[in-house]
Amino acid sequence: MPLKNLSVLLPGIKWLHGYTAQDAVADLIAGITVGLTVLPQGLAYATLAGLEPQYGLYSSFVGGIVYAMLGSCRQVTIGPTALLALMTSRHTGLGLDSGPAYGILLCLISGVVELAMAVLKLGALVDLISLPVTVGFTSATAVIIGTSQLKGLLGLRGGSGSDFINTMRSVFGNLQQVRRGDLTLGLVSISVLLLLRKLKTVNLAQRVRNLRAQQVLSGSIWVVSTGRNALVVLVSSVLAYSQCESQDSCPFILTGKVKSGLPSLALPKFETTILGKNETEVPQNFQQMAKLGPSMLILPIIAVLGNVAISKAFGGAGLSPTRELVALSLSNICGAFCSSMPVTGSFSRSAVNHASGVRTPIGGCYTSVLVLLALSLLAPYFQYIPKAALSAVIISAVIFMIEFEVLRPLWRCSRRELLPGAITFVMSLAVGVEIGLLLGVGADVAFLVYRAARPVLTVSKLQTINGMCYILIRPKHSSLYFPAIEWVRSGISKALSTHGTAPVVLDCAHVHDFDFTAARGMGSLYKELAKVNVPLFLMSAHKDIGVILKESTNIDFPTIDCPNDLDILLEQMPDFVLHLQVTAPLVESRMLHTVEANATELSKLTTSSA
Amino acid sequence: MPLKNLSVLLPGIKWLHGYTAQDAVADLIAGITVGLTVLPQGLAYATLAGLEPQYGLYSSFVGGIVYAMLGSCRQVTIGPTALLALMTSRHTGLGLDSGPAYGILLCLISGVVELAMAVLKLGALVDLISLPVTVGFTSATAVIIGTSQLKGLLGLRGGSGSDFINTMRSVFGNLQQVRRGDLTLGLVSISVLLLLRKLKTVNLAQRVRNLRAQQVLSGSIWVVSTGRNALVVLVSSVLAYSQCESQDSCPFILTGKVKSGLPSLALPKFETTILGKNETEVPQNFQQMAKLGPSMLILPIIAVLGNVAISKAFGGAGLSPTRELVALSLSNICGAFCSSMPVTGSFSRSAVNHASGVRTPIGGCYTSVLVLLALSLLAPYFQYIPKAALSAVIISAVIFMIEFEVLRPLWRCSRRELLPGAITFVMSLAVGVEIGLLLGVGADVAFLVYRAARPVLTVSKLQTINGMCYILIRPKHSSLYFPAIEWVRSGISKALSTHGTAPVVLDCAHVHDFDFTAARGMGSLYKELAKVNVPLFLMSAHKDIGVILKESTNIDFPTIDCPNDLDILLEQMPDFVLHLQVTAPLVESRMLHTVEANATELSKLTTSSA
Repeated sequence: MPLKNLSVLLPGIKWLHGYTAQDAVADLIAGITVGLTVLPQGLAYATLAGLEPQYGLYSSFVGGIVYAMLGSCRQVTIGPTALLALMTSRHTGLGLDSGPAYGILLCLISGVVELAMAVLKLGALVDLISLPVTVGFTSATAVIIGTSQLKGLLGLRGGSGSDFINTMRSVFGNLQQVRRGDLTLGLVSISVLLLLRKLKTVNLAQRVRNLRAQQVLSGSIWVVSTGRNALVVLVSSVLAYSQCESQDSCPFILTGKVKSGLPSLALPKFETTILGKNETEVPQNFQQMAKLGPSMLILPIIAVLGNVAISKAFGGAGLSPTRELVALSLSNICGAFCSSMPVTGSFSRSAVNHASGVRTPIGGCYTSVLVLLALSLLAPYFQYIPKAALSAVIISAVIFMIEFEVLRPLWRCSRRELLPGAITFVMSLAVGVEIGLLLGVGADVAFLVYRAARPVLTVSKLQTINGMCYILIRPKHSSLYFPAIEWVRSGISKALSTHGTAPVVLDCAHVHDFDFTAARGMGSLYKELAKVNVPLFLMSAHKDIGVILKESTNIDFPTIDCPNDLDILLEQMPDFVLHLQVTAPLVESRMLHTVEANATELSKLTTSSA
Repeated sequence: MPLKNLSVLLPGIKWLHGYTAQDAVADLIAGITVGLTVLPQGLAYATLAGLEPQYGLYSSFVGGIVYAMLGSCRQVTIGPTALLALMTSRHTGLGLDSGPAYGILLCLISGVVELAMAVLKLGALVDLISLPVTVGFTSATAVIIGTSQLKGLLGLRGGSGSDFINTMRSVFGNLQQVRRGDLTLGLVSISVLLLLRKLKTVNLAQRVRNLRAQQVLSGSIWVVSTGRNALVVLVSSVLAYSQCESQDSCPFILTGKVKSGLPSLALPKFETTILGKNETEVPQNFQQMAKLGPSMLILPIIAVLGNVAISKAFGGAGLSPTRELVALSLSNICGAFCSSMPVTGSFSRSAVNHASGVRTPIGGCYTSVLVLLALSLLAPYFQYIPKAALSAVIISAVIFMIEFEVLRPLWRCSRRELLPGAITFVMSLAVGVEIGLLLGVGADVAFLVYRAARPVLTVSKLQTINGMCYILIRPKHSSLYFPAIEWVRSGISKALSTHGTAPVVLDCAHVHDFDFTAARGMGSLYKELAKVNVPLFLMSAHKDIGVILKESTNIDFPTIDCPNDLDILLEQMPDFVLHLQVTAPLVESRMLHTVEANATELSKLTTSSA
């Protein structure tokens, strides 16, 4: 069955089965709508990435075709995004013709790393990024992107950097050079964009009585609202075209020449020259170029994170993450041969795609055709797009990436989780988004380790039915591993010194696993306690735990099923019982305290027991 | 009460209370015995650290005095160790007079970092180093130290590096230059040292009938065995002195001039000059010197780890870790003013101290006096010590640090823990001990995260007493945090697609905690399941879990105490029940499968259910 084999390799073939004219029309409309969004966004994101505008369009057509062949979620559209553009911009500022070379190389590397993640099933790494860290990261990115666009909005010359602090310093240092024309156009564009965005949610059509007119009106509103980016860019370009016949009197800074025509199909370049000190050309060889640092790993992980989030939002849990990863990876690898910068799924364009009624991923092909047509035919006109308009497009897209709404529930139910989020946000702004993300994940992982290292211990002094006192220690964690064993040991010695000598019972009902270090520690504890005539029992311990303890320490830990078994076992240790009756005063059966990993509590405990 | 206040600051004062003549004699004997061990070890470890021999002695007297005043465990002796010497040697090879400057600065920094660890209660960081990683680390260190001494043993010229691979290459590349005299002396010394070490455990005295003679014999054996290092060094020095009157005919490479006299009490230097390219002097300022990289953190952690291990071994769990940390820290800080290299507790000398019957930490003071006397009076004679003898002292000490005996129990009960140990061992040899240790700890931490991310899920399809089918999911972990929620979600959707539609019950009996990400994930799952008419219930959930779910998602998760409550709750959802009765075939009540984070198992599961 060659067709079946082919459809394993290219699952997109199944979309052609029973692909009706109606499907084609729906996909065509959605494809064109997405195309009208990606054209201005692509030009803007390329500028954000520090590349010439045409690279944004080069990045916008490969993903659609590859995803139509390999992807499985009809709404996903793959192309340039603000986040990846920002991360790319860290490597494109080295001068001369190195920018595109680095951007394209990063695209190739991302694709290869994503493929490796798919093969090694490392897509699960995105599970390590918690929601507060995601929110901190995207919010910081939005702030950085927003401020980087201030220059364009204010008509200040100079590139847009990815460094928040330097950008702010440069903007505020040059406020006297703000150009009135750019500022006005920018502010008007932002206002129009936000109004048009809002328009979709206001049900104006309801007020019209005629059903036909109502349909036409609501349809027009939807088209205008969805195509608002294209509309603003078109209007402002026409304005600029009419004003700027002579270069001198032009009130706006324009995008400038956009190279016309399709990108050449070529291997990514592995050598380039950068601008050295004293304006010299410094050649870079393969090894120097390959040193893209943490971006080589973090950019693909961010790309995968974005893609997973989108396909989860639109496709539910039924999608194969590996297949999505392969589609993303090949979009980047193939893209690198068409001069693309790194791409991933775009949440905003996927939402547009969904709202436009897309039926199959083939819709992406129509977007790609539109982009290719624009590159061939429209490129000469793109030079009239004012930079302020593009900045307005970006700013009014990213301000909705700043998420305040999780702060309230986080504050109310889990304040400690604000910390990793805050670390990510602040460090992303202060040092860089990659470092910020790593530190946020590090803080989350540190908490996981802390939980494993400092399990809550419940300590009770109880009596068996025969009146024998014992100390019950119950760790509230599913395992006792190396970082926790010293904590448990010192908890037990503290309990003994506080509550007097009595047999110690470690309740393992919640503990499913010990490791070697913990088992050895239990062995030392057992011997230490035996020296002062205190026996140590395990209660409700799973068989596996007995095995690992025996193998690691050569000690047969006495094990009981319920506290009353103690009476029988202790009868076999008469010396101990005698010793015990002398030293241990009887207390009522009650829970004494809970040892939490909390310095204040502990110090109270120590004080009260002193 | 000024005396009480003083004893809080200097807890050592309590040793003087009732310090009898017998105590003094016992401490004196122990102190001298330890001194006879530390003299040859100090000279050898200084050479290992890439410093002149006298620095080993400078490092051997401050710790004893400081620990007597601040420490609480009588057996602990603080001074130079092979491990710290090895880690110091990474920074002493820059040429000119920079070696001592860096060594002393590292000593100061270690002390300060240890003090910071004490203040911030970070001593618990050593809990993160599991037993397999400790074993891998010390074994790798022993191998590196052992090979670094091969040059001395073979009589090859050139410094002893800390780099295993380069040392091996250099040794095997110069085998033709091996000097017969040094090799013979080295091998004989090692044999004698190992024999004398063994002598202590063989009870020769038993064979003598006369009780008095028996006592004398066993006493002499003990003294000879314990003082074997001093003895071998003394004999070989006398031999060298008699052979080497003329420098030319000397069959051994000698230690060379050891600077006589006490070290000057001086601030550590914060600037020095190193040897640059082309034999030029390159001055190093404070900033350049402070760049000691990971050593600044890892060396103190290793020092603390060593010290904790010793005080735990000899003092039990009753010691205050913070006080021990302060004592160690001040030993280093004060030491830095007396030209000391980094110091910590020495396991071998503490064992000698214990065996010599030490009664209080004051014994350390007698050791210090002996070292100071040696510096003043014996230094001229140290130059005759053959390097091969010192190498033999080191080698016969470190070969017992290679621990094979944990391999067997690890293999039998917890094979996965061999991995972090092996990573530590191999990477320590290949790249360096600090990196090896960090990677080992990283592997252990990765496992902790993995356990939290991939909890074992038990999936069963069961019936209530009224015959209503439901799917029970029981996560076997004490918490559901961000890395696990996708795993649980996909486990539930897999269970539904395998076993047909039925209400899903998540058993939270073992789950004590949710975080925000997991709560939000549960919310999405709830909505997703509701779309396909599957209700989701929580069973035996703690009140806190209900609160965090409600606050995070605004959903009131229906909660039951036992499966039979389902009947009542489902009666209130007639639509669902109808839907259910049509689609779900009744099955017998049994556990269906356990989802383990195991690719093979999962693929089997998927295949069998396809």
